Amino acid sequence: MSQLRRDPIINRWVIISTERARRPNDFRVEKQAIGKGGFCPFCEGNEAKTPAEIMAIRRPDSGPNQPGWSLRVVSNKFPALAIEGDLQRKGIGLFDQMNGIGAHEVIIETNRHVVDIAELSEAEILQVIGAYQSRSLDLKKDSRFRYILIFKNCGERAGASLEHTHSQIIATPVTPKRVREELAGSQQHFLAKERCIFCDLLEQELDSGKRVIQETQHFMVLAPFASCFPFETWILPRRHHPDFDQISEAERQDLAAVLRKTIYRINRSLNNPPYNYLIHTAPNRYRRSGYWQTIDQDYHWHLEIIPRLTGIAGFEWGTGFYINPTAPEDAAAYLREID
Amino acid sequence: MSQLRRDPIINRWVIISTERARRPNDFRVEKQAIGKGGFCPFCEGNEAKTPAEIMAIRRPDSGPNQPGWSLRVVSNKFPALAIEGDLQRKGIGLFDQMNGIGAHEVIIETNRHVVDIAELSEAEILQVIGAYQSRSLDLKKDSRFRYILIFKNCGERAGASLEHTHSQIIATPVTPKRVREELAGSQQHFLAKERCIFCDLLEQELDSGKRVIQETQHFMVLAPFASCFPFETWILPRRHHPDFDQISEAERQDLAAVLRKTIYRINRSLNNPPYNYLIHTAPNRYRRSGYWQTIDQDYHWHLEIIPRLTGIAGFEWGTGFYINPTAPEDAAAYLREID
Repeated sequence: MSQLRRDPIINRWVIISTERARRPNDFRVEKQAIGKGGFCPFCEGNEAKTPAEIMAIRRPDSGPNQPGWSLRVVSNKFPALAIEGDLQRKGIGLFDQMNGIGAHEVIIETNRHVVDIAELSEAEILQVIGAYQSRSLDLKKDSRFRYILIFKNCGERAGASLEHTHSQIIATPVTPKRVREELAGSQQHFLAKERCIFCDLLEQELDSGKRVIQETQHFMVLAPFASCFPFETWILPRRHHPDFDQISEAERQDLAAVLRKTIYRINRSLNNPPYNYLIHTAPNRYRRSGYWQTIDQDYHWHLEIIPRLTGIAGFEWGTGFYINPTAPEDAAAYLREID
Repeated sequence: MSQLRRDPIINRWVIISTERARRPNDFRVEKQAIGKGGFCPFCEGNEAKTPAEIMAIRRPDSGPNQPGWSLRVVSNKFPALAIEGDLQRKGIGLFDQMNGIGAHEVIIETNRHVVDIAELSEAEILQVIGAYQSRSLDLKKDSRFRYILIFKNCGERAGASLEHTHSQIIATPVTPKRVREELAGSQQHFLAKERCIFCDLLEQELDSGKRVIQETQHFMVLAPFASCFPFETWILPRRHHPDFDQISEAERQDLAAVLRKTIYRINRSLNNPPYNYLIHTAPNRYRRSGYWQTIDQDYHWHLEIIPRLTGIAGFEWGTGFYINPTAPEDAAAYLREID
């Protein structure tokens, strides 16, 4: 089983993954076949090549793990975290560790061998967003899990090991460091001003317009002021809510259109770059804890898209201090131009 | 001039670099020629192809920017930060920005076209470490600078744009986020226990031995307990000191040998992987500030080496939650084996 370990200096948890264990020689062949032309376990007809499905959208006359579906959610074949077991928290001198308990699921977004979500129809993307929401709501019932992360790796350089368009969900027994930082920052703002910092940001950006890529009824698409990466793009809901999985029917519809359009703009502008996107949402919380109750007011879910255009060198990794060669105002202007 | 911008939510400064400005088409050709076989501006005889030298180790009969040197320090031709000008700190609503003032220097470690520092002699590496120290001491005299970062990118995938072995120094007008986190963590430990967390770590790791790769008179080489990356390796001085640039003559000698040996082990074990290394040291500080005085006791400089074996996918970037496929105990065992 994987192990979770905490860095005693900066309080960052790391997964030491035995499922994916690698010895020195294993790193020598880095390039992976990602199903180009070859066999794809995510295509219709190959259901037996994935772990059993957790949910699926399929024709009423079709059975589980059989053809006849348009979306499937399955466990990751090489999960970073395992669903069975206890956390068994333990201290060893300065160090803290626990078992690698969690969930790691894959959302196969279509039965066709399509390589980018932007090639799906709005109706299909709506199904994907619906699957994100329903898996998130379901995983939150497990009290071992503190955070539900929904993300996508598209393209080999963005970490995708299979080409067929898919997303991943990881439920973790700790709230990730970056999420805690965002929560702390937005809470600090709320305590000082009794306003949500994301709501303030939304208003300020709409006023200035310089970094806005698109406005719709329910969302704003923008290039953030202090983007770490060129063409970094956020999709921010206008309605204040901490939890992605409380998205409404009308917002889901709008998000499907906005997400498709935004990825299309990035693809057209940057020649189909590898990219990641992630949903930033509030951690799972329970009635008993006082702190998490304030979070309804001070956190605001959103989706972040990172095209993978530049590498990360020593400077960035060692310092968390990023050098971005494209001003967000310019990135927004380039992306706005594409229709 | 570049601009420094602060993320209002997580308080992270980012450099928006105009010197390296990139439009969408500029990202399409990512692969760089890094001097393989071709022209190398860092080789002896090509001094005119670099900015003027800031310091050099050269034969007494040779003139500046002429052949006859064994080590040169020059300004970066495409600096992320500029040395001339004022910071001009400014707020725009929620946002903070300032001019991109700083220093960005390149240390050309040898006049020969060698691609890895481990191929240099101990005497040559000693010169490199001496240059790190003397440039750091010199840059600290500039009161605009808060932090001096010394790092190396080796190999194209680690961010090196030229193959000829070199290091970089960046002086920044803000203390980078990751450094602040380490300082905060080690200060918290010091306030609770009146002991340095790195000194505690050193003792605990020597006792257990499981993650120790090498011990010398002045240093310990170890695979950190919560390594984010496979084969991540730290070189930790045994003597407590916050500042790298207060390294003694004997420590410099020992570090040259230990660094060479450690990179050699990584190269042998992992087939010359791309890697980054960074010196983590205390921020620049001034007598007037109360906080920084305690830091002499609670921070402990060290060098971190990150072989670039795995990519960074959406999960890691979005959450700061790393999945490491090689247990540090195993990495230490593999590296120890190599002699």
